[in-house]
Amino acid sequence: MSLQDNKTGQFSRRRLFGAVGTGAALVGVGAIAGHATASGAEVPTSDVVEFRGDHQAGIVTPAQDRMHFVAFDITTDSREDFVALLKKWTLMAERLVHGEETFDGGAVDGGEYNVPSDTGEALGLTASSLTLTIGFGPSMFDRFDLASKKPASLADLQHFPADNLDPRRSGGDLCIQACADDPQVAVHAIRNLARVGFGTVSVKWSQLGFGRTSSTSTTQATPRNLFGFKDGTANLKAEDPSLLDDNVWVAADDDQEWMAGGSYLVARRIRMLIESWDRTTLKEQERVIGRSKGTGAPLGQKDEFDALDFESQGPEGTFIDKTAHVRLASNENLGGVQLLRRGYNFTDGSDGFGHLDAGLFFIAYCRDPLTQFVPMQLALSRKDALNEYIQHVGSAVFACPPGVEESEYWGSTLFE
Amino acid sequence: MSLQDNKTGQFSRRRLFGAVGTGAALVGVGAIAGHATASGAEVPTSDVVEFRGDHQAGIVTPAQDRMHFVAFDITTDSREDFVALLKKWTLMAERLVHGEETFDGGAVDGGEYNVPSDTGEALGLTASSLTLTIGFGPSMFDRFDLASKKPASLADLQHFPADNLDPRRSGGDLCIQACADDPQVAVHAIRNLARVGFGTVSVKWSQLGFGRTSSTSTTQATPRNLFGFKDGTANLKAEDPSLLDDNVWVAADDDQEWMAGGSYLVARRIRMLIESWDRTTLKEQERVIGRSKGTGAPLGQKDEFDALDFESQGPEGTFIDKTAHVRLASNENLGGVQLLRRGYNFTDGSDGFGHLDAGLFFIAYCRDPLTQFVPMQLALSRKDALNEYIQHVGSAVFACPPGVEESEYWGSTLFE
Repeated sequence: MSLQDNKTGQFSRRRLFGAVGTGAALVGVGAIAGHATASGAEVPTSDVVEFRGDHQAGIVTPAQDRMHFVAFDITTDSREDFVALLKKWTLMAERLVHGEETFDGGAVDGGEYNVPSDTGEALGLTASSLTLTIGFGPSMFDRFDLASKKPASLADLQHFPADNLDPRRSGGDLCIQACADDPQVAVHAIRNLARVGFGTVSVKWSQLGFGRTSSTSTTQATPRNLFGFKDGTANLKAEDPSLLDDNVWVAADDDQEWMAGGSYLVARRIRMLIESWDRTTLKEQERVIGRSKGTGAPLGQKDEFDALDFESQGPEGTFIDKTAHVRLASNENLGGVQLLRRGYNFTDGSDGFGHLDAGLFFIAYCRDPLTQFVPMQLALSRKDALNEYIQHVGSAVFACPPGVEESEYWGSTLFE
Repeated sequence: MSLQDNKTGQFSRRRLFGAVGTGAALVGVGAIAGHATASGAEVPTSDVVEFRGDHQAGIVTPAQDRMHFVAFDITTDSREDFVALLKKWTLMAERLVHGEETFDGGAVDGGEYNVPSDTGEALGLTASSLTLTIGFGPSMFDRFDLASKKPASLADLQHFPADNLDPRRSGGDLCIQACADDPQVAVHAIRNLARVGFGTVSVKWSQLGFGRTSSTSTTQATPRNLFGFKDGTANLKAEDPSLLDDNVWVAADDDQEWMAGGSYLVARRIRMLIESWDRTTLKEQERVIGRSKGTGAPLGQKDEFDALDFESQGPEGTFIDKTAHVRLASNENLGGVQLLRRGYNFTDGSDGFGHLDAGLFFIAYCRDPLTQFVPMQLALSRKDALNEYIQHVGSAVFACPPGVEESEYWGSTLFE
């Protein structure tokens, strides 16, 4: 049909958009320059995040606005089938982040008697800075003769005080994190990856996030979480590669060589008891957090990015309370431990008791969860003043392999 | 503190944003001109939808990208308290749609020993075309001596074939629909309105929608639903006021005078069985819908906006199947009935059985649900080929009063 690309016969979301020729711009589409992809299709470059590289995209990529995160159970005993799925997913993921449909033929060009190879709801939308990031859970290494390849750092997280975990929102044999500036693009990607996984994997749980709560680049303004505070001011940033090497990227001699250039992902679904929070005074809220709500400045300081001062005394003791969240979570308190946070605000309707089911889907990337996330969460779960207003209700940890080079696939350093 | 507006001492989200002076633009913020509101604060105009007028905003307003919809139970027997809440909500709503905080003082300027009068998570975000639209459910008229004011058209919807309604996602004494181009702005509005309603109303259910599935203006491109099809091509549009008068706005002599200029809102949570859909052929999908998946053209035609032709024969009978969705839902089939659709795609994680809990949150506005929505849904629920792939799991109907003029409040034509 007329919507095919002349050069390769391959379908492109953008060519359809152009061919249909609606007068109005769709969400997120600005003035964009085109370039030719491997498939020959003309796609915009300004909102494409490159798929291949030393590291997976979606970790230090400037945090996109929206997220769809999914955890899968593996439902096959065949290593061959699972590896075949990883290879297929890799091809699909590269196309998706380029704003293309999942496969040749796509939603409408594969022949009317075939099941469409793309579900089609992203037709006409741009790449929207989509990134797709895969991670392998501890339980995956019980399969496929992988036990000897399991990193020591990849263990189910210990129980922390006050954890109230829902097993239906925890764990998983593997995960895919989709982040994009358009939620429909992120949902489309996860849905299609889940679709082709039928018979090999099954969705265990998933989470949508509507607003990023961290900056991962100095080019981004610090967003606010649902407590109304700026979140992630002191986060690691893409612009400091040496700190990332120390704290995010696994080194070749850390443990398992296949993880070199990878990172560990810790996910925590943190329900915020926002109705309780909303009834506390500004003073209490700022004491609990340790920052000014308006500017985000540490208490006792003036500007958001001023250094935290844990010693100076105000009229009621140290400006920053002994149990303030920023004190306990600070690298000073934790012997230099830092994480790359990449969380999202969520609101999943109501909880059936008149409250919004809302909170923070915490995601952090680190070089070793046992020496970074665990000590931080132990410090927080024991003493954080914020614990009165939050509850950890989901938990998972995944080993995210390094980025894929040409001819590699997701996890090829592990499976080959 | 330094973030106050000089003229009135009133806090403005935008002034804080300017004062903090981050280098990066937040999502959705373009080059925007300022104007002075009643409160004297400088706010951008380009993404403010005017709150007051003959009709409520959020009905024929060009459909924004994101939605947060909430239904409340009334928990007081005091008409006085309820009216006081409606007055308070009206003041808040006008401020919110102007991109201001809910009340003077707001999140950070009301004194540290006070509970903040705004929760703060929208600080730094613009108005984002926020609209807030209120509706009153049938059960509200059992209270407050309102029985004689209940419109005959406002009755709980009848049972339709194959309805599988969850009472926890249905009904409600009243509702508020928040639509905005930034989801955090919509969530912030609903959360703050629910917050101040404590003791008077309680959240019954709520729904987030991440992508609009209808255009309500000829300036908008037709979006796609999660079946991958363009949705709402034949929708009523804001640019045809005479059709809106016929089909959307209640006239003074229709029934209850207080509803003149108002409209009825029908909400249906429609779960899409997308895993089944995704395994059907393109031909079957197009037969079920009656349109081409790629272009959105009616089957047998070439362009999206070509007229539906129900008579012409193709090689296998009429181009448009006798049970195709577009045939049964067409005004030709329904004796001229039309609705203003304003729905949203949703994905609420997983259903616990390995499937995405995804679908369409259908919203329609009409002049009389009994003569417009009911006959349409009867036709669809009995014969629509689409029924194999969808399930109606939530249902509600609300009477949305007319817009508020100066000195009026939400529902004042009913309560005064």
